[in-house]
Amino acid sequence: MTPDRVAAILDFLALADRLKLVERRGRIPLPDGTTRRENSAEHCWHLALVALLMAEEVAAPIDLARVLTMAVVHDLVEIEAGDSYAYDPAAQATAAERERAAADIVFAGLPADLALRLRAAWEEFEAGETAEARFAMACDRAQGFLQNVLSQGLAWREHGVAAPTTHPRMHPAMAVDPAFAALIGALYARAETGGMFAGAAG
Amino acid sequence: MTPDRVAAILDFLALADRLKLVERRGRIPLPDGTTRRENSAEHCWHLALVALLMAEEVAAPIDLARVLTMAVVHDLVEIEAGDSYAYDPAAQATAAERERAAADIVFAGLPADLALRLRAAWEEFEAGETAEARFAMACDRAQGFLQNVLSQGLAWREHGVAAPTTHPRMHPAMAVDPAFAALIGALYARAETGGMFAGAAG
Repeated sequence: MTPDRVAAILDFLALADRLKLVERRGRIPLPDGTTRRENSAEHCWHLALVALLMAEEVAAPIDLARVLTMAVVHDLVEIEAGDSYAYDPAAQATAAERERAAADIVFAGLPADLALRLRAAWEEFEAGETAEARFAMACDRAQGFLQNVLSQGLAWREHGVAAPTTHPRMHPAMAVDPAFAALIGALYARAETGGMFAGAAG
Repeated sequence: MTPDRVAAILDFLALADRLKLVERRGRIPLPDGTTRRENSAEHCWHLALVALLMAEEVAAPIDLARVLTMAVVHDLVEIEAGDSYAYDPAAQATAAERERAAADIVFAGLPADLALRLRAAWEEFEAGETAEARFAMACDRAQGFLQNVLSQGLAWREHGVAAPTTHPRMHPAMAVDPAFAALIGALYARAETGGMFAGAAG
Protein backbone atom coordinates (compact mmCIF):
# COMPACT_ATOMS: atom_id res chain seq x y z
CA MET A 1 0.00 0.00 0.00
CA THR A 2 1.18 3.51 -0.76
CA PRO A 3 1.37 6.00 2.12
CA ASP A 4 -1.53 7.93 0.57
CA ARG A 5 -3.67 4.80 0.46
CA VAL A 6 -2.84 3.96 4.08
CA ALA A 7 -3.63 7.51 5.17
CA ALA A 8 -6.97 7.47 3.32
CA ILE A 9 -7.96 4.19 4.98
CA LEU A 10 -6.99 5.49 8.44
CA ASP A 11 -8.85 8.74 7.89
CA PHE A 12 -11.95 6.81 6.82
CA LEU A 13 -11.72 4.61 9.91
CA ALA A 14 -11.45 7.77 12.02
CA LEU A 15 -14.55 9.21 10.34
CA ALA A 16 -16.39 5.90 10.83
CA ASP A 17 -15.71 6.15 14.58
CA ARG A 18 -18.46 8.79 14.65
CA LEU A 19 -21.12 6.16 13.92
CA LYS A 20 -20.71 5.23 17.61
CA LEU A 21 -22.19 8.66 18.44
CA VAL A 22 -25.28 8.37 16.22
CA GLU A 23 -28.15 7.59 18.56
CA ARG A 24 -31.17 5.53 17.57
CA ARG A 25 -34.57 5.58 19.25
CA GLY A 26 -34.30 1.99 20.42
CA ARG A 27 -33.01 1.57 23.96
CA ILE A 28 -30.60 -0.77 25.75
CA PRO A 29 -31.61 -2.01 29.22
CA LEU A 30 -29.00 -1.18 31.88
CA PRO A 31 -28.23 -3.13 35.07
CA ASP A 32 -29.72 -0.37 37.26
CA GLY A 33 -33.15 -0.77 35.63
CA THR A 34 -32.85 2.34 33.43
CA THR A 35 -32.09 2.36 29.71
CA ARG A 36 -29.93 4.30 27.30
CA ARG A 37 -30.29 4.79 23.55
CA GLU A 38 -28.58 2.31 21.29
CA ASN A 39 -26.10 3.77 18.81
CA SER A 40 -25.82 2.80 15.17
CA ALA A 41 -22.47 1.01 15.51
CA GLU A 42 -23.90 -1.25 18.22
CA HIS A 43 -26.97 -1.82 16.05
CA CYS A 44 -24.82 -2.86 13.07
CA TRP A 45 -22.91 -5.36 15.19
CA HIS A 46 -26.10 -6.82 16.66
CA LEU A 47 -27.67 -7.01 13.19
CA ALA A 48 -24.61 -8.94 11.95
CA LEU A 49 -25.13 -11.40 14.81
CA VAL A 50 -28.78 -11.84 13.78
CA ALA A 51 -27.52 -12.56 10.26
CA LEU A 52 -25.08 -15.21 11.52
CA LEU A 53 -27.81 -16.97 13.47
CA MET A 54 -30.38 -16.82 10.65
CA ALA A 55 -28.04 -17.62 7.74
CA GLU A 56 -28.86 -21.32 7.64
CA GLU A 57 -32.51 -21.03 8.70
CA VAL A 58 -33.70 -19.65 5.38
CA ALA A 59 -34.66 -21.79 2.40
CA ALA A 60 -32.56 -20.09 -0.29
CA PRO A 61 -28.80 -20.11 0.27
CA ILE A 62 -27.30 -16.65 0.75
CA ASP A 63 -23.81 -15.27 0.31
CA LEU A 64 -22.88 -14.57 3.93
CA ALA A 65 -19.90 -12.35 3.10
CA ARG A 66 -22.16 -9.99 1.16
CA VAL A 67 -24.80 -9.97 3.90
CA LEU A 68 -22.24 -9.20 6.60
CA THR A 69 -20.65 -6.53 4.43
CA MET A 70 -24.03 -4.84 4.12
CA ALA A 71 -24.55 -5.17 7.89
CA VAL A 72 -21.27 -3.37 8.53
CA VAL A 73 -21.62 -0.53 6.00
CA HIS A 74 -25.37 0.08 5.62
CA ASP A 75 -25.60 2.82 8.26
CA LEU A 76 -22.33 4.68 7.57
CA VAL A 77 -24.32 7.41 5.79
CA GLU A 78 -25.86 8.25 9.18
CA ILE A 79 -22.55 9.86 10.17
CA GLU A 80 -23.68 12.74 7.94
CA ALA A 81 -27.44 12.21 7.71
CA GLY A 82 -28.23 11.07 11.28
CA ASP A 83 -30.63 8.26 12.11
CA SER A 84 -34.09 8.56 10.57
CA TYR A 85 -36.60 7.03 12.97
CA ALA A 86 -38.59 4.29 11.26
CA TYR A 87 -41.88 5.66 12.61
CA ASP A 88 -41.26 9.35 11.91
CA PRO A 89 -42.97 10.01 8.55
CA ALA A 90 -41.31 13.42 8.13
CA ALA A 91 -37.83 11.95 8.61
CA GLN A 92 -38.61 8.99 6.35
CA ALA A 93 -39.92 11.24 3.56
CA THR A 94 -36.52 12.87 3.13
CA ALA A 95 -34.26 10.03 4.30
CA ALA A 96 -33.38 8.61 0.88
CA GLU A 97 -32.34 11.97 -0.53
CA ARG A 98 -30.42 13.01 2.61
CA GLU A 99 -28.65 9.66 2.76
CA ARG A 100 -27.64 9.80 -0.89
CA ALA A 101 -26.06 13.21 -0.35
CA ALA A 102 -24.42 11.85 2.81
CA ALA A 103 -22.97 8.88 0.91
CA ASP A 104 -21.25 11.30 -1.48
CA ILE A 105 -19.52 12.88 1.52
CA VAL A 106 -18.80 9.78 3.62
CA PHE A 107 -17.25 7.64 0.90
CA ALA A 108 -15.44 10.53 -0.83
CA GLY A 109 -12.20 10.19 1.13
CA LEU A 110 -11.60 6.52 0.32
CA PRO A 111 -9.42 5.32 -2.57
CA ALA A 112 -11.75 4.94 -5.58
CA ASP A 113 -11.82 1.13 -5.61
CA LEU A 114 -12.68 0.93 -1.91
CA ALA A 115 -15.27 3.70 -2.17
CA LEU A 116 -16.88 1.81 -5.04
CA ARG A 117 -16.93 -1.47 -3.11
CA LEU A 118 -18.41 -0.02 0.09
CA ARG A 119 -20.86 2.19 -1.75
CA ALA A 120 -22.00 -0.77 -3.87
CA ALA A 121 -22.81 -2.71 -0.69
CA TRP A 122 -24.78 0.26 0.68
CA GLU A 123 -26.64 0.66 -2.62
CA GLU A 124 -27.40 -3.07 -2.79
CA PHE A 125 -28.90 -2.82 0.71
CA GLU A 126 -30.92 0.28 -0.16
CA ALA A 127 -32.24 -1.17 -3.43
CA GLY A 128 -33.40 -4.29 -1.60
CA GLU A 129 -33.55 -6.37 -4.76
CA THR A 130 -31.08 -9.19 -4.23
CA ALA A 131 -31.69 -12.15 -1.92
CA GLU A 132 -28.81 -10.92 0.26
CA ALA A 133 -30.25 -7.40 0.52
CA ARG A 134 -33.65 -8.75 1.45
CA PHE A 135 -32.09 -11.05 4.04
CA ALA A 136 -30.09 -8.12 5.48
CA MET A 137 -33.24 -5.96 5.54
CA ALA A 138 -35.09 -8.64 7.51
CA CYS A 139 -32.20 -8.87 10.01
CA ASP A 140 -32.10 -5.06 10.30
CA ARG A 141 -35.79 -4.80 11.09
CA ALA A 142 -35.78 -7.82 13.41
CA GLN A 143 -32.89 -6.29 15.36
CA GLY A 144 -34.67 -2.94 15.73
CA PHE A 145 -37.84 -4.66 16.87
CA LEU A 146 -35.90 -6.89 19.28
CA GLN A 147 -34.25 -3.81 20.81
CA ASN A 148 -37.70 -2.42 21.58
CA VAL A 149 -38.78 -5.69 23.13
CA LEU A 150 -35.59 -5.80 25.25
CA SER A 151 -36.43 -2.33 26.59
CA GLN A 152 -40.11 -3.13 27.26
CA GLY A 153 -41.32 -1.02 24.33
CA LEU A 154 -40.21 2.25 25.90
CA ALA A 155 -39.44 3.95 22.57
CA TRP A 156 -42.71 2.69 21.06
CA ARG A 157 -44.76 4.22 23.85
CA GLU A 158 -42.65 7.43 23.86
CA HIS A 159 -43.47 7.89 20.18
CA GLY A 160 -47.06 6.58 20.21
CA VAL A 161 -46.27 3.51 18.10
CA ALA A 162 -49.13 0.98 18.30
CA ALA A 163 -48.76 -2.53 16.87
CA PRO A 164 -50.47 -1.77 13.51
CA THR A 165 -48.05 1.13 12.94
CA THR A 166 -45.22 -1.40 12.84
CA HIS A 167 -46.88 -3.69 10.29
CA PRO A 168 -45.87 -1.87 7.08
CA ARG A 169 -42.25 -2.12 8.27
CA MET A 170 -42.31 -5.63 9.73
CA HIS A 171 -44.54 -7.53 7.31
CA PRO A 172 -42.07 -7.20 4.40
CA ALA A 173 -39.35 -8.55 6.71
CA MET A 174 -41.57 -11.49 7.68
CA ALA A 175 -42.25 -12.13 3.99
CA VAL A 176 -38.54 -12.68 3.25
CA ASP A 177 -38.65 -16.27 4.54
CA PRO A 178 -40.77 -18.38 6.92
CA ALA A 179 -37.84 -18.33 9.35
CA PHE A 180 -38.13 -14.55 9.65
CA ALA A 181 -41.91 -14.86 9.95
CA ALA A 182 -41.31 -17.20 12.91
CA LEU A 183 -38.63 -15.02 14.51
CA ILE A 184 -40.53 -11.76 14.18
CA GLY A 185 -43.83 -13.45 15.01
CA ALA A 186 -42.33 -14.59 18.31
CA LEU A 187 -41.13 -11.03 18.97
CA TYR A 188 -44.66 -9.72 18.34
CA ALA A 189 -45.97 -12.29 20.81
CA ARG A 190 -43.51 -11.09 23.46
CA ALA A 191 -44.42 -7.46 22.76
CA GLU A 192 -48.17 -8.13 22.94
CA THR A 193 -47.91 -10.28 26.07
CA GLY A 194 -45.78 -7.62 27.73
CA GLY A 195 -48.16 -4.79 26.76
CA MET A 196 -45.23 -3.00 25.14
CA PHE A 197 -46.92 -1.10 22.29
CA ALA A 198 -48.46 2.35 22.68
CA GLY A 199 -52.08 2.08 23.74
CA ALA A 200 -51.62 -1.43 25.14
CA ALA A 201 -53.28 -2.29 28.42
CA GLY A 202 -50.03 -3.88 29.74
CA MET B 1 -37.98 -23.24 12.87
CA THR B 2 -39.59 -24.77 15.92
CA PRO B 3 -40.85 -22.41 18.64
CA ASP B 4 -38.09 -23.71 20.94
CA ARG B 5 -35.44 -22.90 18.36
CA VAL B 6 -36.86 -19.41 17.80
CA ALA B 7 -36.98 -18.79 21.55
CA ALA B 8 -33.38 -19.97 21.99
CA ILE B 9 -32.17 -17.63 19.23
CA LEU B 10 -34.08 -14.68 20.70
CA ASP B 11 -32.78 -15.40 24.20
CA PHE B 12 -29.22 -15.56 22.85
CA LEU B 13 -29.69 -12.23 21.04
CA ALA B 14 -30.99 -10.76 24.31
CA LEU B 15 -27.92 -12.06 26.15
CA ALA B 16 -25.67 -10.71 23.40
CA ASP B 17 -27.15 -7.24 23.96
CA ARG B 18 -25.02 -7.09 27.10
CA LEU B 19 -21.82 -6.88 25.04
CA LYS B 20 -22.84 -3.22 24.52
CA LEU B 21 -22.21 -2.72 28.25
CA VAL B 22 -18.72 -4.25 28.34
CA GLU B 23 -16.34 -1.32 28.48
CA ARG B 24 -12.85 -1.40 27.01
CA ARG B 25 -9.96 0.85 27.99
CA GLY B 26 -9.80 2.53 24.60
CA ARG B 27 -11.72 5.78 24.36
CA ILE B 28 -13.98 7.46 21.80
CA PRO B 29 -13.53 11.21 21.24
CA LEU B 30 -16.74 13.17 21.82
CA PRO B 31 -17.81 16.43 20.15
CA ASP B 32 -17.36 18.38 23.42
CA GLY B 33 -13.66 17.50 23.56
CA THR B 34 -14.02 14.82 26.24
CA THR B 35 -13.96 11.07 25.63
CA ARG B 36 -15.87 8.00 26.76
CA ARG B 37 -14.82 4.37 26.84
CA GLU B 38 -15.54 2.25 23.80
CA ASN B 39 -17.65 -0.83 24.39
CA SER B 40 -16.96 -4.26 22.94
CA ALA B 41 -19.92 -4.25 20.54
CA GLU B 42 -18.70 -1.00 18.98
CA HIS B 43 -15.19 -2.43 18.81
CA CYS B 44 -16.43 -5.55 16.98
CA TRP B 45 -18.25 -3.44 14.41
CA HIS B 46 -15.23 -1.19 13.87
CA LEU B 47 -12.96 -4.24 13.59
CA ALA B 48 -15.26 -5.67 10.90
CA LEU B 49 -14.93 -2.41 8.97
CA VAL B 50 -11.12 -2.66 9.22
CA ALA B 51 -11.45 -6.18 7.81
CA LEU B 52 -13.57 -4.99 4.88
CA LEU B 53 -11.05 -2.30 4.00
CA MET B 54 -8.00 -4.58 4.33
CA ALA B 55 -9.47 -7.70 2.70
CA GLU B 56 -7.99 -7.03 -0.72
CA GLU B 57 -4.77 -5.39 0.46
CA VAL B 58 -3.16 -8.62 1.66
CA ALA B 59 -1.23 -10.99 -0.59
CA ALA B 60 -2.99 -14.25 0.29
CA PRO B 61 -6.71 -14.40 -0.47
CA ILE B 62 -8.88 -14.77 2.63
CA ASP B 63 -12.40 -16.07 3.17
CA LEU B 64 -14.19 -12.84 4.08
CA ALA B 65 -17.28 -14.55 5.51
CA ARG B 66 -15.12 -16.40 8.03
CA VAL B 67 -13.18 -13.28 8.96
CA LEU B 68 -16.35 -11.24 9.48
CA THR B 69 -17.92 -14.09 11.48
CA MET B 70 -14.91 -14.04 13.81
CA ALA B 71 -15.15 -10.25 14.05
CA VAL B 72 -18.78 -10.51 15.17
CA VAL B 73 -18.42 -13.36 17.69
CA HIS B 74 -14.85 -13.15 19.03
CA ASP B 75 -15.70 -11.00 22.06
CA LEU B 76 -19.03 -12.57 23.09
CA VAL B 77 -17.25 -14.37 25.94
CA GLU B 78 -16.65 -10.94 27.49
CA ILE B 79 -20.33 -10.86 28.47
CA GLU B 80 -19.31 -13.28 31.22
CA ALA B 81 -15.55 -12.71 31.48
CA GLY B 82 -15.35 -8.92 30.99
CA ASP B 83 -12.71 -7.22 28.87
CA SER B 84 -9.12 -8.14 29.71
CA TYR B 85 -6.93 -5.10 29.06
CA ALA B 86 -4.17 -5.94 26.62
CA TYR B 87 -1.56 -4.23 28.81
CA ASP B 88 -2.68 -5.64 32.18
CA PRO B 89 -0.43 -8.68 32.77
CA ALA B 90 -2.57 -9.96 35.67
CA ALA B 91 -5.74 -9.90 33.56
CA GLN B 92 -3.96 -11.45 30.59
CA ALA B 93 -2.53 -14.29 32.70
CA THR B 94 -5.99 -15.59 33.52
CA ALA B 95 -7.89 -14.42 30.41
CA ALA B 96 -7.74 -17.67 28.42
CA GLU B 97 -9.06 -19.77 31.31
CA ARG B 98 -11.76 -17.25 32.27
CA GLU B 99 -12.87 -16.87 28.67
CA ARG B 100 -13.09 -20.62 28.12
CA ALA B 101 -15.35 -20.94 31.16
CA ALA B 102 -17.35 -17.97 29.89
CA ALA B 103 -17.79 -19.60 26.47
CA ASP B 104 -19.37 -22.62 28.15
CA ILE B 105 -21.97 -20.29 29.68
CA VAL B 106 -22.52 -17.87 26.79
CA PHE B 107 -23.03 -20.46 24.05
CA ALA B 108 -24.93 -22.93 26.24
CA GLY B 109 -28.39 -21.57 25.47
CA LEU B 110 -28.11 -21.86 21.70
CA PRO B 111 -29.36 -24.87 19.72
CA ALA B 112 -26.42 -27.30 19.48
CA ASP B 113 -25.65 -26.69 15.79
CA LEU B 114 -25.58 -22.91 16.22
CA ALA B 115 -23.55 -23.15 19.43
CA LEU B 116 -21.03 -25.32 17.59
CA ARG B 117 -20.81 -22.90 14.65
CA LEU B 118 -20.34 -19.78 16.76
CA ARG B 119 -18.00 -21.46 19.19
CA ALA B 120 -15.92 -22.83 16.32
CA ALA B 121 -15.46 -19.28 15.01
CA TRP B 122 -14.40 -18.08 18.47
CA GLU B 123 -11.98 -20.99 18.85
CA GLU B 124 -10.54 -20.41 15.39
CA PHE B 125 -9.89 -16.79 16.36
CA GLU B 126 -8.34 -17.76 19.71
CA ALA B 127 -6.10 -20.45 18.17
CA GLY B 128 -4.80 -17.96 15.60
CA GLU B 129 -3.60 -20.65 13.25
CA THR B 130 -5.58 -20.11 10.04
CA ALA B 131 -4.94 -17.29 7.58
CA GLU B 132 -8.39 -15.92 8.45
CA ALA B 133 -7.71 -15.98 12.20
CA ARG B 134 -4.38 -14.21 11.72
CA PHE B 135 -6.03 -11.61 9.48
CA ALA B 136 -8.78 -11.07 12.07
CA MET B 137 -6.17 -10.78 14.84
CA ALA B 138 -4.32 -8.10 12.88
CA CYS B 139 -7.59 -6.18 12.35
CA ASP B 140 -8.45 -6.54 16.06
CA ARG B 141 -5.12 -5.12 17.20
CA ALA B 142 -5.07 -2.40 14.55
CA GLN B 143 -8.54 -1.30 15.66
CA GLY B 144 -7.54 -1.16 19.34
CA PHE B 145 -4.41 0.81 18.47
CA LEU B 146 -6.39 3.15 16.21
CA GLN B 147 -8.85 3.84 19.03
CA ASN B 148 -5.98 4.98 21.21
CA VAL B 149 -4.66 7.22 18.45
CA LEU B 150 -8.15 8.71 17.95
CA SER B 151 -8.28 9.58 21.65
CA GLN B 152 -4.75 11.05 21.73
CA GLY B 153 -3.35 8.08 23.67
CA LEU B 154 -5.37 8.88 26.80
CA ALA B 155 -5.70 5.23 27.87
CA TRP B 156 -2.01 4.57 27.15
CA ARG B 157 -0.93 7.40 29.42
CA GLU B 158 -3.54 6.50 32.08
CA HIS B 159 -2.04 3.01 32.25
CA GLY B 160 1.62 3.90 31.76
CA VAL B 161 1.88 2.23 28.36
CA ALA B 162 5.05 3.35 26.54
CA ALA B 163 5.66 2.49 22.89
CA PRO B 164 7.86 -0.58 23.58
CA THR B 165 5.13 -2.06 25.79
CA THR B 166 2.92 -2.26 22.72
CA HIS B 167 5.48 -4.04 20.54
CA PRO B 168 4.84 -7.64 21.69
CA ARG B 169 1.18 -7.11 20.82
CA MET B 170 1.56 -5.13 17.61
CA HIS B 171 4.59 -6.73 15.95
CA PRO B 172 2.77 -10.07 15.37
CA ALA B 173 -0.08 -8.10 13.78
CA MET B 174 2.38 -6.27 11.53
CA ALA B 175 3.93 -9.63 10.59
CA VAL B 176 0.63 -10.93 9.17
CA ASP B 177 1.13 -9.07 5.89
CA PRO B 178 3.05 -6.02 4.60
CA ALA B 179 -0.30 -4.23 4.31
CA PHE B 180 -0.77 -4.50 8.08
CA ALA B 181 2.84 -3.45 8.62
CA ALA B 182 2.07 -0.32 6.58
CA LEU B 183 -1.24 0.38 8.33
CA ILE B 184 0.05 -0.12 11.85
CA GLY B 185 3.36 1.56 11.02
CA ALA B 186 1.40 4.66 9.99
CA LEU B 187 -0.53 4.51 13.28
CA TYR B 188 2.75 4.33 15.21
CA ALA B 189 3.95 7.39 13.31
CA ARG B 190 0.79 9.29 14.28
CA ALA B 191 1.17 8.19 17.90
CA GLU B 192 4.83 9.18 18.08
CA THR B 193 4.31 12.51 16.32
CA GLY B 194 1.43 13.29 18.65
CA GLY B 195 3.39 12.32 21.79
CA MET B 196 0.59 9.91 22.70
CA PHE B 197 2.48 7.17 24.53
CA ALA B 198 3.22 7.24 28.24
CA GLY B 199 6.51 9.00 28.90
CA ALA B 200 6.41 10.84 25.55
CA ALA B 201 7.47 14.46 25.47
CA GLY B 202 4.37 15.52 23.44
